Amino acid sequence: MGAAPGTITYLGNRSDTKFVVTVAEYDKDKLQLAQLTDVREIGRYKETPETTWLNIVGLADEAKIGFIGKEFGFNPLILEDAVNTHIRPKIDEYDDYIFGVFKMMYMDANNELVIEHTAMILCKNAVLVLQEMEEDVFGGVRERMGNKLGRIRNNGPDYLFFTLLDSIIDNYFAVLENIYDQLEALEEEVYNDPTPETAHKIQQLKKEVLGIRKWAFPVKELISRLIDSESSLITKETKLYLKGALDHCYEVNENLLLYREMSSSLMELYMTNVSNKMNEVMKVLTIMASIFIPLTFIVGIYGMNFDNMPELHWKYGYFMVMGAMLLLFVAMMIYFKRKKWL
Amino acid sequence: MGAAPGTITYLGNRSDTKFVVTVAEYDKDKLQLAQLTDVREIGRYKETPETTWLNIVGLADEAKIGFIGKEFGFNPLILEDAVNTHIRPKIDEYDDYIFGVFKMMYMDANNELVIEHTAMILCKNAVLVLQEMEEDVFGGVRERMGNKLGRIRNNGPDYLFFTLLDSIIDNYFAVLENIYDQLEALEEEVYNDPTPETAHKIQQLKKEVLGIRKWAFPVKELISRLIDSESSLITKETKLYLKGALDHCYEVNENLLLYREMSSSLMELYMTNVSNKMNEVMKVLTIMASIFIPLTFIVGIYGMNFDNMPELHWKYGYFMVMGAMLLLFVAMMIYFKRKKWL
Amino acid sequence: MGAAPGTITYLGNRSDTKFVVTVAEYDKDKLQLAQLTDVREIGRYKETPETTWLNIVGLADEAKIGFIGKEFGFNPLILEDAVNTHIRPKIDEYDDYIFGVFKMMYMDANNELVIEHTAMILCKNAVLVLQEMEEDVFGGVRERMGNKLGRIRNNGPDYLFFTLLDSIIDNYFAVLENIYDQLEALEEEVYNDPTPETAHKIQQLKKEVLGIRKWAFPVKELISRLIDSESSLITKETKLYLKGALDHCYEVNENLLLYREMSSSLMELYMTNVSNKMNEVMKVLTIMASIFIPLTFIVGIYGMNFDNMPELHWKYGYFMVMGAMLLLFVAMMIYFKRKKWL
Amino acid sequence: MGAAPGTITYLGNRSDTKFVVTVAEYDKDKLQLAQLTDVREIGRYKETPETTWLNIVGLADEAKIGFIGKEFGFNPLILEDAVNTHIRPKIDEYDDYIFGVFKMMYMDANNELVIEHTAMILCKNAVLVLQEMEEDVFGGVRERMGNKLGRIRNNGPDYLFFTLLDSIIDNYFAVLENIYDQLEALEEEVYNDPTPETAHKIQQLKKEVLGIRKWAFPVKELISRLIDSESSLITKETKLYLKGALDHCYEVNENLLLYREMSSSLMELYMTNVSNKMNEVMKVLTIMASIFIPLTFIVGIYGMNFDNMPELHWKYGYFMVMGAMLLLFVAMMIYFKRKKWL
Amino acid sequence: MGAAPGTITYLGNRSDTKFVVTVAEYDKDKLQLAQLTDVREIGRYKETPETTWLNIVGLADEAKIGFIGKEFGFNPLILEDAVNTHIRPKIDEYDDYIFGVFKMMYMDANNELVIEHTAMILCKNAVLVLQEMEEDVFGGVRERMGNKLGRIRNNGPDYLFFTLLDSIIDNYFAVLENIYDQLEALEEEVYNDPTPETAHKIQQLKKEVLGIRKWAFPVKELISRLIDSESSLITKETKLYLKGALDHCYEVNENLLLYREMSSSLMELYMTNVSNKMNEVMKVLTIMASIFIPLTFIVGIYGMNFDNMPELHWKYGYFMVMGAMLLLFVAMMIYFKRKKWL
Repeated sequence: MGAAPGTITYLGNRSDTKFVVTVAEYDKDKLQLAQLTDVREIGRYKETPETTWLNIVGLADEAKIGFIGKEFGFNPLILEDAVNTHIRPKIDEYDDYIFGVFKMMYMDANNELVIEHTAMILCKNAVLVLQEMEEDVFGGVRERMGNKLGRIRNNGPDYLFFTLLDSIIDNYFAVLENIYDQLEALEEEVYNDPTPETAHKIQQLKKEVLGIRKWAFPVKELISRLIDSESSLITKETKLYLKGALDHCYEVNENLLLYREMSSSLMELYMTNVSNKMNEVMKVLTIMASIFIPLTFIVGIYGMNFDNMPELHWKYGYFMVMGAMLLLFVAMMIYFKRKKWL
Repeated sequence: MGAAPGTITYLGNRSDTKFVVTVAEYDKDKLQLAQLTDVREIGRYKETPETTWLNIVGLADEAKIGFIGKEFGFNPLILEDAVNTHIRPKIDEYDDYIFGVFKMMYMDANNELVIEHTAMILCKNAVLVLQEMEEDVFGGVRERMGNKLGRIRNNGPDYLFFTLLDSIIDNYFAVLENIYDQLEALEEEVYNDPTPETAHKIQQLKKEVLGIRKWAFPVKELISRLIDSESSLITKETKLYLKGALDHCYEVNENLLLYREMSSSLMELYMTNVSNKMNEVMKVLTIMASIFIPLTFIVGIYGMNFDNMPELHWKYGYFMVMGAMLLLFVAMMIYFKRKKWL
Repeated sequence: MGAAPGTITYLGNRSDTKFVVTVAEYDKDKLQLAQLTDVREIGRYKETPETTWLNIVGLADEAKIGFIGKEFGFNPLILEDAVNTHIRPKIDEYDDYIFGVFKMMYMDANNELVIEHTAMILCKNAVLVLQEMEEDVFGGVRERMGNKLGRIRNNGPDYLFFTLLDSIIDNYFAVLENIYDQLEALEEEVYNDPTPETAHKIQQLKKEVLGIRKWAFPVKELISRLIDSESSLITKETKLYLKGALDHCYEVNENLLLYREMSSSLMELYMTNVSNKMNEVMKVLTIMASIFIPLTFIVGIYGMNFDNMPELHWKYGYFMVMGAMLLLFVAMMIYFKRKKWL
Repeated sequence: MGAAPGTITYLGNRSDTKFVVTVAEYDKDKLQLAQLTDVREIGRYKETPETTWLNIVGLADEAKIGFIGKEFGFNPLILEDAVNTHIRPKIDEYDDYIFGVFKMMYMDANNELVIEHTAMILCKNAVLVLQEMEEDVFGGVRERMGNKLGRIRNNGPDYLFFTLLDSIIDNYFAVLENIYDQLEALEEEVYNDPTPETAHKIQQLKKEVLGIRKWAFPVKELISRLIDSESSLITKETKLYLKGALDHCYEVNENLLLYREMSSSLMELYMTNVSNKMNEVMKVLTIMASIFIPLTFIVGIYGMNFDNMPELHWKYGYFMVMGAMLLLFVAMMIYFKRKKWL
Repeated sequence: MGAAPGTITYLGNRSDTKFVVTVAEYDKDKLQLAQLTDVREIGRYKETPETTWLNIVGLADEAKIGFIGKEFGFNPLILEDAVNTHIRPKIDEYDDYIFGVFKMMYMDANNELVIEHTAMILCKNAVLVLQEMEEDVFGGVRERMGNKLGRIRNNGPDYLFFTLLDSIIDNYFAVLENIYDQLEALEEEVYNDPTPETAHKIQQLKKEVLGIRKWAFPVKELISRLIDSESSLITKETKLYLKGALDHCYEVNENLLLYREMSSSLMELYMTNVSNKMNEVMKVLTIMASIFIPLTFIVGIYGMNFDNMPELHWKYGYFMVMGAMLLLFVAMMIYFKRKKWL
């Protein structure tokens, strides 16, 4: 905060990622994979006859990112955004390139949600991807790239850009599915064995849904704007594919709204269950007290030490009192049975 | 996930449905029904002087669906959507055909909601319908098709397309009515005999309403776009009918909103009832305890073994205490009566 | 459901209403009232120099309504809607007539809400009104029609159409006022004497508000569209009057939103009252138990039968214990007083 | 209800206000104040070289208002609205005049909210104000009118119209401030000393906010339309002032939304406080019962009359039991202390 | 209230701030800082070849502010708004200057939120900033201004205007972060150790979020309008920077909505925790009462003084009763264990 606009400052907490640039050059006939040992060589990928995917891992090395930006002639503002992990997803169109910031979201090996900052820049012959960590959601893209007859190899960088974006959005569904499963499990838990912990878990899940929505919600509008864009960088055919991605975005947003509403409902259900449990506890107490307190009073009467208490001297006084109490007990039981408390 | 766009992958869980294609060829004068034994013959229905309804059951046979798509020259993207049961309802217009994905919703024999994926493609001379199961909501359409003077026989494929879509929407009302009945029954249950199970049922119903809304809500906009469409495939007269269907969509959406609000209200009412019940339980407990605890204390006093307790030796001491306790009892009863706890 | 569009099917439950057609022909100089004995004569009112109000009661006689439609040359779709009591309020403009469906709402003699289906068709020289029952909200219009200098007599059918619509909307206010009164009464009840029944009544009222909104809400937009209409059937002057009606619609909608919010608030208030009552009950229980349980323990001590209990043999032991208990009682009372529980 | 449109009927409950017309004629050089003794003279203010403010108090005298309307040639519809206290705030533009209906809102001497119906008509040379009661919010305007160099005196009737409207809106802030103070006081009350009465007061305040919103909300749009108006009655300079008033309207609306949300929050907070209080009550009960019920059981054991109870005959049996009970008591106290119930 | 529009009246409560004007004159080559001793000299900064930042602290000195306004030829309306601390953030464009009102928000040394009124006026060669207190959020701007090669020095007043505005918005994030930390701390508190105080804190935080939203929400639209503005005062390049600021505004608003929802959720969670605690309390009570009340009844039986009670004379009667009670106790414990109450 307080820095001049255009200053490149990485705001995330994954500074320990090693800075690595991998290059994939391809056209219909060939695919060449490489790792860039020296970032200073990056300039030569600026204008190649093939399509180039430059995948840059590690956003903390601000100097190198600044260097790349200068080589490619990017506006400093976009490099600031590229490493600003706090920034809202966005797509900015410039004359020679289109710049986008998104969040990859996926479940890691421990089934925990990972949110990873990604910037993508579509140039005339290349797509630059900047990502926080080595892990990403582009495995499928890399695989399909190997297929000589596949669409990636037979299209330009705009299709690659789309396909990467599509992978990001596709993974939102995997995350949503995971959340749905958690919701279902929590509903089961609320119904069968609610503990105070359950309420906390519902709350955590709701926060997670709200957090995901924050990153996923704006994407819809961005893609929609991309479809309406007049930039020469995106072909008409790719726009057709983007329309499909747009439909997916709508679905993601609707599901997020739905899950949010479901988690609120679940909390409500939890509350009613807590109340029902309390009701049950109260009924046990009330039944026990209502039956035995009057009986205790009766036996208390005949425990009094008055000189003149005729009943005490009746031969069957004790048995009569015991019988009367039994009757009272039975009457009480019937009463509570009728009230459906038993 | 991870597959290239345009890959035909059935995502539903009704893979065991047998793949069947039935054909209805008709014009003003004749109606010819048939079952297609070999999918390879489908090409000859592409251009017929009559209107053809190709009804394809079973979405799991991806190869055959791919074949049909190729025969008719459909964009692979639409075949992907046709079997993608997760996809949001949509209508896409192409130059030579209009493609739509919807959900049929109906109550089955066990009065349970069935949601069935349907894709419909309006071509120049034919309507292709792809559905997950043999069961559908088009019984009425088939019947009316037999009527030589009916509108179906005297109109082109666009009217058939409309009439199928109209049947789908009409069935939403049957589903909504069922939900309304459940809401009414649950309200009765909340009022007369609420159990923890009741809360669970309300929650389930709410989830059902939210689920239906997810599939029914987008239809409104799709039809509205169809009405504004400039495609030559839809005649002006059919658009007039579509306006009626649009009105029905509005109604469906309004009812869904209403039912959602009603189910929320019902949960609230349930909560107040639980609280009221607890209040009642507490009152019984409080009355029993408030009356008998003091009395037990009194009899306890005269159960003490002090040497010097004059009252014990009074001739009518016992009866006086009993009388006093009776008075106290009556006073208590009057007190609680006044408080309206009895 | 399942019927072809354009089929005339009455869906309401007032099939026992007798089918009656009354006619009012008028211009500046004369007013002629009549009852049509034979529906087949209706054709002659199609083109008269005077303005004609054809009031048709009873929607169950589908054949006769079909006949009227044919005589006047109406699109069959509008006759389907005219008797479809489930349909959302709508206005459809055709070349020669304007068709509208609305709900009359009024309180009957038992102060219960009546919702009556009404269709109105504005033709060049006539207004046709189709209503479910003989009762309606047009009494004032009939009266004013008698006034030779009044606006109705000096204007054409479009003014009559407006004036009938205006009467329908005006009656919404009467219904709203009734709901407001119920809300006020319920608030009084919640505050003074809430019973479980009260919660149920609030819920019923809320449902009623939601139900009315369903029918009243769309009217606003319909009138707004009528004002923007380019149909030659509506004069500029009548549009001025329609603007007033539009203002009323806005007000109706705002009041409905307000009442819905108020009924939700009321339910909340009810809940707090229930909780407060429970608090009060609990306090009584706690006070009684907290005071008498320790005292009972004390008297229990001196009811023990140990051989060696010196206090029992003290001359004033009994009185000392009684005094001590009195002190404890007083201390307890002060404690609870301080806690403001008494 | 049921009356023909254009009928002048006062619907408010302030019919006892005396009908008074005061006149202020002014231009740069002179200011002449007068009270109109005979309403029939009003015609001569229709066209004067000076600007005239005709302030008409008392809306119940429908005949006189009708007379004024006729003198000035107003559309009867606007006179109906001018005295219709139920009408939503509105501005209607006519060729020769602009008509507006608003609600003055202000706190009276007893700090209670007064809502007063006001109609204002901007003519070529005059502004007519119709108000229900003699009290109004125009004191500041009258004062400023005395200032020869002030803006009112140096501008035309449109500035007067604006300045009156501005006074009305300005007073909404005073009302809002009062509501804010009440909210703060209630929050204090909820926190320190919540009674069932508190919940009722919160509910009342919320209803008041909703009621005010009903009257204040539409004003924003009206002014916005006035700014876009092409009427020659309003100068460009006055429109600049109206923009300021529009900002105020936005603020009023935002504050009302805020206060509504705050009152809802407050009710929630009240509920948690009630629950917390109940928790406290329950803890006292549970502690008392849990400590003394077991002890009472123990003393009950040694109150039994069995022949063979060895402990009773031990020399220090009594003291041992008393000691054991003391230990139990202390253990209990420690247990509850640990649970933080004490 | 009641004052004529255009009257300069400071409404805030920081009237004790000393009125100070500091001047920064700069261009590419030089930077000259000064403090203006006499406000009357301000006129000479109106037209300078350099860019001038006039920073005016202290809004209570209405006379001096009026003087500045007159010197620069500002519309009196904007000076009214400049010192009106109640006014909603706004931007008004005039022919020769652009006027904006905003709220600086920042955490002070005690980590408490400070809201400070600020007005900014962009003229042809100067930016005037009026602020309530000496403290502000422009420290970073002043620092960067010293950098000869920095963007501020190499751009005109519109960039300065942007950069000040950007600083204000940037500080909103710091405030939001602080709120987020408080939310997290409160969630921890709700989970581990909820007290009635916790509910109060949640309520306070929610009110703070609502309050901040009031001031931050409108900024988005203002900047958006500035970007669309056709004023010659703002260069195209600065508009590019403004787009970045707009993105930040979106983010601020989304976070505010998120925090509001989170605080509501938190209150709900608090409620469930209170209910859970009550449940626990009730269980302890019920277990104690259910176990010991029946046992006390049993010992009461054998405390009765009937002449004929055979069990009393059995040799092992006492031990048998004690054994029976032990069995009952164990059975009870098992019962409650099974119910998971223990």
